[in-house]
Amino acid sequence: MAVDPLRNLCDLLARLPGVGERTAQRMAYHIVRQSADYANALAQALLGVVKDVRTCSRCQALTAVEPCAICGDPQRRRDVICVVANPQDIAAIEATGEHRGLYHVLHGVLSPLEGVGPEEIRARLLLERLPGDPPVGEVIVATPASVEGEATALYLSGLIRPLGIAVTRIAFGIPMGSEIEYADKLTLARALGGRRPI
Amino acid sequence: MAVDPLRNLCDLLARLPGVGERTAQRMAYHIVRQSADYANALAQALLGVVKDVRTCSRCQALTAVEPCAICGDPQRRRDVICVVANPQDIAAIEATGEHRGLYHVLHGVLSPLEGVGPEEIRARLLLERLPGDPPVGEVIVATPASVEGEATALYLSGLIRPLGIAVTRIAFGIPMGSEIEYADKLTLARALGGRRPI
Repeated sequence: MAVDPLRNLCDLLARLPGVGERTAQRMAYHIVRQSADYANALAQALLGVVKDVRTCSRCQALTAVEPCAICGDPQRRRDVICVVANPQDIAAIEATGEHRGLYHVLHGVLSPLEGVGPEEIRARLLLERLPGDPPVGEVIVATPASVEGEATALYLSGLIRPLGIAVTRIAFGIPMGSEIEYADKLTLARALGGRRPI
Repeated sequence: MAVDPLRNLCDLLARLPGVGERTAQRMAYHIVRQSADYANALAQALLGVVKDVRTCSRCQALTAVEPCAICGDPQRRRDVICVVANPQDIAAIEATGEHRGLYHVLHGVLSPLEGVGPEEIRARLLLERLPGDPPVGEVIVATPASVEGEATALYLSGLIRPLGIAVTRIAFGIPMGSEIEYADKLTLARALGGRRPI
């Protein structure tokens, strides 16, 4: 007897992040209950992503067009680059509407323990972009607040600051709307250290 | 510009049960990072399910073969049918190894408020199976412990008991391993009402 198609679908869905055996099964049964249109559309979307999505040659973001929509947008400032660890971080920052410059995706953070060194994080590609037209005046480092994210920020700063380009780090502190008393110790320490004149 | 393939994939993934905008995005980026083999395999699995999965003409379970593996298994007892609301309930009951008979999937429970009446739950198809060879001697009703699940059990009992066939209900009570003091009131009441001689 051939492989059970439902079993096969469950096994593949269970390889998605955050999806266990049970959730995969619930999804698979849901898909079967839907009209065939949905499963077909999802299959085509998967094939479309494989076929069309590449990294932008300039910012390394994932894109179906070359250059990506942001790099190709004449309205964006070309003298400010925001550096992020992962492609999905761009969507989060875009949602704020606060950054009108370009991006650079490292596709990781420095992590010697996991064998991720400077060559792996596409830092060299960032350096090559700095003498642009106009030349880049500020690099905003938006890597995460983890040990690896901090080490990556320091590493980039060490490379870029000597070129006479400002390197800034996004602020870490108490999230908006949360109570001071519930903040964890590290966050509160960071918030105090990063205090600014009112 | 054409639809962004990543956006399209996110939108479709977000229609899966328990998957929000954020989770869908995380899944989509995960899929892009994987080798193309994974996305291709998942797409083929989706198309395979649409093409091959049907309801078994006997028990109404989802299956790629006709009859399904359980209905077609000569080792299963044919005189006991376990009635479940959803196809995925079969896997849970099979995992116990306690039921060696057949199944019948209602694909729902009676719910007048949602317009689900006797015609919608495939109860007639169950009745047609009862005078089998050998004839069915017991119908185990394993619909959930909800108001609708109970109403469905009573409805089936009213149809089947007059035919001289035993209709039983799975036991509801304190889950194995949990403390009596933490049991909710309804469950504890049910456990007391369902007490049996030791």
